[in-house]
Parts: sequence; C-alpha cells; structure tokens
Amino acid sequence: MTPERLARINQTLDNRQPDLTICLEAVHKTHNLSAIVRTADAVGVHDVHAVLVQGYQRMSSGTALGSQNWVNVHMHSNIEEAVSQMKAQKMQVLATHLSSKAVDFREIDYTKPTAILMGQEKFGITPEALELADHHIVIPMVGMVQSLNVSVAGATILYEAQRQRQLAGMYGQNKLSAAERHKILFEGGHP
Amino acid sequence: MTPERLARINQTLDNRQPDLTICLEAVHKTHNLSAIVRTADAVGVHDVHAVLVQGYQRMSSGTALGSQNWVNVHMHSNIEEAVSQMKAQKMQVLATHLSSKAVDFREIDYTKPTAILMGQEKFGITPEALELADHHIVIPMVGMVQSLNVSVAGATILYEAQRQRQLAGMYGQNKLSAAERHKILFEGGHP
Ligand SMILES: C[S@@+](CC[C@H](N)C(=O)[O-])C[C@H]1O[C@@H](n2cnc3c(N)ncnc32)[C@H](O)[C@@H]1O
Ligand SMILES: C[S@@+](CC[C@H](N)C(=O)[O-])C[C@H]1O[C@@H](n2cnc3c(N)ncnc32)[C@H](O)[C@@H]1O
Repeated sequence: MTPERLARINQTLDNRQPDLTICLEAVHKTHNLSAIVRTADAVGVHDVHAVLVQGYQRMSSGTALGSQNWVNVHMHSNIEEAVSQMKAQKMQVLATHLSSKAVDFREIDYTKPTAILMGQEKFGITPEALELADHHIVIPMVGMVQSLNVSVAGATILYEAQRQRQLAGMYGQNKLSAAERHKILFEGGHP
Repeated sequence: MTPERLARINQTLDNRQPDLTICLEAVHKTHNLSAIVRTADAVGVHDVHAVLVQGYQRMSSGTALGSQNWVNVHMHSNIEEAVSQMKAQKMQVLATHLSSKAVDFREIDYTKPTAILMGQEKFGITPEALELADHHIVIPMVGMVQSLNVSVAGATILYEAQRQRQLAGMYGQNKLSAAERHKILFEGGHP
C-alpha cells in the first residue's frame, strides 16, 4: 500500500459516523442500493441496512457492494429485526413518508444518533416501519410528480445530516472502535 | 378536469422557478435524465437542458419525459449552444467539478438566476463547460468513493437551491408568462 493510499484510508476512517445509518425497506433494484451505498460512503455513513424481499435473496451474495464501497451492508429478513438493532444503538428512527402529517426533513436534529428508513419504489414505506419510527419525515415537493426516486430522496436527507454534523464539528473525530479500524486497514490494504 | 386537479396544476405553476435550470452535458442513460427531471419538477425547475451524445440522438424523441413530468426538456447538440441560451437569460453558470479548486456548493447564492451544469458519468464535465462557467462547484465527500451518481449530485444541489429560495420567499410568486401558463393549462387538462 502506498503512503498516499494509507493516508486516504485513515482520513476516511477518521470521518466515519457510526451513529448515522440508512435502511432500505425493500430492495428489488440493485442500482438503487448501489447509489445509496455510494452516497453513504461520501457522507461518512459506515453501515447501511437493507431488508430482503422474498424471492430476491440471491442478490445479497455475489455483489461487490460492501468491499467496493467501504461501507458495511447488513441484510435483514424483516424491518423489525433491522429497527431493533438501531434502537439497541439508541438511534432515533425516522420513517420517510409522503404524508401531510410528516414533518419537514430539515426540522430534525441529525447530530443525534439517527437511522433513516426508506420505502420501496412502488408502495412506499410499510405500516410496520411507520409504527416503529419515532418521527415521520418528508422532503417538500412543489411540482406535479408525487415522489422522488428513492436514492435521490436518501441522498437529500443524508446531505442535510452531513451539513448539520459538519457545522457541529462531528467529522474527523475517529469514532470507530480500534478493532473495526484494524480490520478495515488490514482488508483495505489488499484489494 | 376536476377542480382538485386544476388547483394542483395552478399551485405547481405558481411555484415554478423559470430562472433556475440544470443541464446534463452528455446523456447516455435515460434513467439519469429521468431522475433529474423528476427532481427538477419537485423543486419547481421548469426547464431542463441536455446535450445529446453523437449516436444517441434517437433517445430524444419518443420518450414521454416532458409531458409526464411537466418539465420542458431542451435538447442541444453542443454545450456552447446550451450555455449561450442560459447567458442570454443572465444566469450565473455553475460547472460541477471534482477538483480541490472548486468551491463548496453551499457557498453559492442560488437566489440569483442560476444554471447548473452536470458532467457525464464516466468522464465528468468537459473542458469546454469548465471554460464557459462562472464558478466551479463541488459537493464535499469524505469517503473512499471518488464521485456521486450524477442524478444524486444534481438533486443535492437543487435541494440546496430550494432551501435558499424558500427562505427568500421565492416560491408561490407566479413567475411564468401568461402565454406559457395558458399553454400548460390547456395541455395539462388533456393527459
Ligand atoms: C418512489 S417513493 C414511493 C412512492 C410511493 N407511491 C409512496 O406513496 O410512498 C420511494 C421511497 O423514496 C422515498 N421518498 C421519495 N420521495 C420522498 C419525499 N418527498 N420525502 C421523503 N421520502 C421520499 C421514500 O422512502 C419512499 O418510500
Ligand atoms: C460520476 S461523476 C463523474 C466522475 C468523473 N470520473 C470525474 O472525474 O468527473 C458524474 C457527474 O456527477 C456530478 N458529481 C458527482 N459527484 C459530484 C460532487 N461530489 N460534486 C459535484 N458534482 C458531482 C458531476 O456533474 C459529474 O460530472
């Protein structure tokens, strides 16, 4: 490994935000998951969650998502399992929901430990996810189209979180455990 | 047309921002253009520009992009043609560029008439576009991945523009010409 590459990896790890995550409720299309993982990496999100859809199980293995992007992708068989992990980490759980009762996504304090739940392209977020969430949030839209693409919506929220966390001085703080850091440096050196 | 639909169309038109636009420099993949048009509609952008890539000309006709999304999609054969139209409308031209010399996209005043130029998925923005631009802007990234997906990057910038324009009270101002409004109301009533 060159010194430049090592420096870059170290800088990336210093910026990781283990207390910020995003979860896709139902993944059919790998390109949406890929786009979200790519944005997650860019804002320092270290773990992405996804709930598998029956019959699409095979997608999870064989894709190079995790290793390519330096982000851990955790697969779950249902949303309860995913959310219980987030709650165990004391995260506030936000469900994105196209409803007039949802609050504007910019009103949320993303400097708190936070998990963002994204719904499925066709049917949106499930009633189960809405029930499990602490807040329902929406990105304002003023046009004729009813919804944004899920990876676009995810990115818009993640960059609001990045803005707030940057203002709060939360980057460059090296928040990963020593064990996690060691594991990544070892694996990352041998791509 | 139902009264509800007419009210919705009128509200959309009241929120249109004719002095904010986005331009894709080289479109190969229709799904990126579609995602950008969808986001443009959601933030009130009325016109989207795209430069055709040699050999992909046929994509422009036959797609339902414009009518489906209530956004005008203007096709150009080169970037100079597109930018000259923007400059004729006294817009500041911003080239998105993955360079350390580019300024953070949040430092720009998007309440000014503004055109945002997006580069191609593989090679990024062209030297011609960089030359024609007033500012080079970049979305900060702190991970290992080198760039964002183009529709994600476009959406992140458009929602920053929406944030600034909303704070400045620029929505709901009915800025379309009476002729344009009439044309859309007539077409929109017969989908
Ligand atoms: C295409 S949308 C789902 C549309 C679905 N018909 C519905 O009513 O929810 C896919 C997902 O993207 C996210 N999304 C899209 N637009 C959004 C917005 N304006 N605010 C918040 N989330 C949004 C949500 O997670 C949503 O479940
Ligand atoms: C996949 S990127 C192009 C990558 C290309 N290798 C390069 O070096 O420019 C496609 C387009 O998305 C936009 N983009 C992606 N990431 C961006 C960022 N962090 N800041 C600004 N624009 C970005 C730019 O318009 C870019 O030309």
